[in-house]
Amino acid sequence: MNNFNFYSPTYFAFGKDAENQVGALVRRFDGSNVLLHYGGGSVVRSGLLERVKASLDREGIEYVSLGGVKPNPRSGLVYDGIDLARREGVNFVLALGGGSTIDSAKAIAAGAVYDGDFWDFYAGKPIEKALPVGTVLTIAAAGSEGSPDSVITNERGMYKRGASGDAIRPRFSVLNPALTQTLPPYQTACGITDILAHLYERYLTNTKEVEVTDRLIEALMLTMIHEGPRVIENPDNYEARANIMWAGMMAHNNACGVGRSQDWNSHNIEHELSALYDCAHGAGLAVTMPAVFRYVMHHDVMRFAQVAVRVWGCPMDFFHPEATALAGIEALRRFITDLGMPRNFYELGAHEADIPKLVDMLCNGDGRPGFITGFVTLNAEDCANIYHMMV
Amino acid sequence: MNNFNFYSPTYFAFGKDAENQVGALVRRFDGSNVLLHYGGGSVVRSGLLERVKASLDREGIEYVSLGGVKPNPRSGLVYDGIDLARREGVNFVLALGGGSTIDSAKAIAAGAVYDGDFWDFYAGKPIEKALPVGTVLTIAAAGSEGSPDSVITNERGMYKRGASGDAIRPRFSVLNPALTQTLPPYQTACGITDILAHLYERYLTNTKEVEVTDRLIEALMLTMIHEGPRVIENPDNYEARANIMWAGMMAHNNACGVGRSQDWNSHNIEHELSALYDCAHGAGLAVTMPAVFRYVMHHDVMRFAQVAVRVWGCPMDFFHPEATALAGIEALRRFITDLGMPRNFYELGAHEADIPKLVDMLCNGDGRPGFITGFVTLNAEDCANIYHMMV
Repeated sequence: MNNFNFYSPTYFAFGKDAENQVGALVRRFDGSNVLLHYGGGSVVRSGLLERVKASLDREGIEYVSLGGVKPNPRSGLVYDGIDLARREGVNFVLALGGGSTIDSAKAIAAGAVYDGDFWDFYAGKPIEKALPVGTVLTIAAAGSEGSPDSVITNERGMYKRGASGDAIRPRFSVLNPALTQTLPPYQTACGITDILAHLYERYLTNTKEVEVTDRLIEALMLTMIHEGPRVIENPDNYEARANIMWAGMMAHNNACGVGRSQDWNSHNIEHELSALYDCAHGAGLAVTMPAVFRYVMHHDVMRFAQVAVRVWGCPMDFFHPEATALAGIEALRRFITDLGMPRNFYELGAHEADIPKLVDMLCNGDGRPGFITGFVTLNAEDCANIYHMMV
Repeated sequence: MNNFNFYSPTYFAFGKDAENQVGALVRRFDGSNVLLHYGGGSVVRSGLLERVKASLDREGIEYVSLGGVKPNPRSGLVYDGIDLARREGVNFVLALGGGSTIDSAKAIAAGAVYDGDFWDFYAGKPIEKALPVGTVLTIAAAGSEGSPDSVITNERGMYKRGASGDAIRPRFSVLNPALTQTLPPYQTACGITDILAHLYERYLTNTKEVEVTDRLIEALMLTMIHEGPRVIENPDNYEARANIMWAGMMAHNNACGVGRSQDWNSHNIEHELSALYDCAHGAGLAVTMPAVFRYVMHHDVMRFAQVAVRVWGCPMDFFHPEATALAGIEALRRFITDLGMPRNFYELGAHEADIPKLVDMLCNGDGRPGFITGFVTLNAEDCANIYHMMV
């Protein structure tokens, strides 16, 4: 096991009506003037925004609002948020929404106390300080509610990049599974796929004998396999929603990913798709993951055989472990397409003719060295091959 | 799933040589005058105490030392520590050792800033403030390095009681698996048994459909089953030690126990044994758990069948689920006795004639109401029956 540090100081308030604690939580973490950040329609229509405002009012906390976050959140709104935060002297950023809103809030929080361009952080500069961030989560997917990560799409060039730092880890996150019951099935399925992807990115490691984190990852995968179809069949199943919501957080706060190298090439390859076509990140991952895994599985067949046997219930073929490995990848593909996820470029709205452009953005964009690294290092030709497998 | 809050802000530094970060970590968490608390021989003999002192010296941090913690830590040394902490004006308590030392340090930290008798907290008073606590762990077992819990034996009556509070959660914990390589096999096995007990206490729940925490608990149990025999066979197996050490923390910081009722009756029943006979807590649990589980299994046969199938690999007997449940309990019993743990009162050094006294301390000691509650409520007769099953 590799040496590591682990620090996850987010306070989680989980359960029915948990959003009514928001005012007290902002107060607990020393906020008094809040930037309320959200997307649009659903947060307003569901009454969540009003309930949160009422909770802040009860504590005498001031706030300004900035809505309009889109899926695959853009740099433009981040600049607006930074300006607003500075103008109003806010000392806390509160995100109401899913990963996009939380990631946008994190970018604003880091940018508001930084003299340069916030994009510096997404080009690799470490984030050393930020306004405190809190979240009220409305979709189980990104895990951003418990992570130090943020992904933003740069509108100058339409590429997605990530930044990370303990300073943007949420001080608190409110997780009420009932808030996710109104999600359309497609978005629910995107979330489940994203959670599975966070687990696979950690599972695909070159570190040997990290049984504890292997087992924890498998536990969360098994949870998604059990609960995913139940929640698609009955969107009001609170218990299934609750299990998925906690699994989504645990999948990405890195408790199950410590002490080992990780992959993240499926995410990198997908990011160019959602940046260019504005498709849902989870949908992009559904098409990306099986192709990537088939492409890289010979790097460590036993890793893929292990997940096939332990998680997908495939029988081990001791003469042909690669058959077992493939069966596991196929089981994953079938599972997510059964949830309603797209199977290929066509269903995703992507175009084969764009592959050279996708590869160039992926391997060379924003100063990248012509390849991407992870479980396997992939050069431009590898990436082109993988995109072609997805057509 | 029940509503819950989860807050685990401990900073973990994990891996080889991690103890050399102690000085910087004390500094990070605002300590400048430290009470160094430890047991005895091994911390000195191994050179750990000197390395930690050197690390503190490098940061210019002052310290006073208080050794002498015994397994099943006593109230007497806690009073000594409180006096010393006040006299020396320490502002940080640093434990070097296992669960006993850490629990003693937590009690000192809470007592040093409280006007009354520290035992009030162990009789039920909430802990609201405490000096900050840090730990350097030397045995994977108690999970105290990541928990808000402490268990102390009251020397006036020799009974063990627990206290809990976020204020005594360690600010940081240093986990170097290499420090555990010198442990005698018996102590290693006691630690593994204690970790398994922490998992069973959470597994035995009356809350339905908490799949995510069921699966996480099972993951950690499977890790112990894989790594336990490897580390008994080869005490120098760093990878096995590392997996057990992280599993031990994860088993008890409650990430795998949220949103559900828990049991803790095996711990309660065992505590009277280690308090009276000064046996190792893990050894006491090895004798206690199989008896308790056989006694209560009819309360929810499917719960015991599930762990038997998923964790112990027992085939499910669909006509007779209780046979599967029993097979799982027997597999647990065989596993821990194969590690070298005792099987009965005799091997533990306990005496059948003491059962009335054990039952009285357990059910009536320190203001208890004549019964204990958990997965199943157990009255004095039940507890006597269970102790008799252990003879």
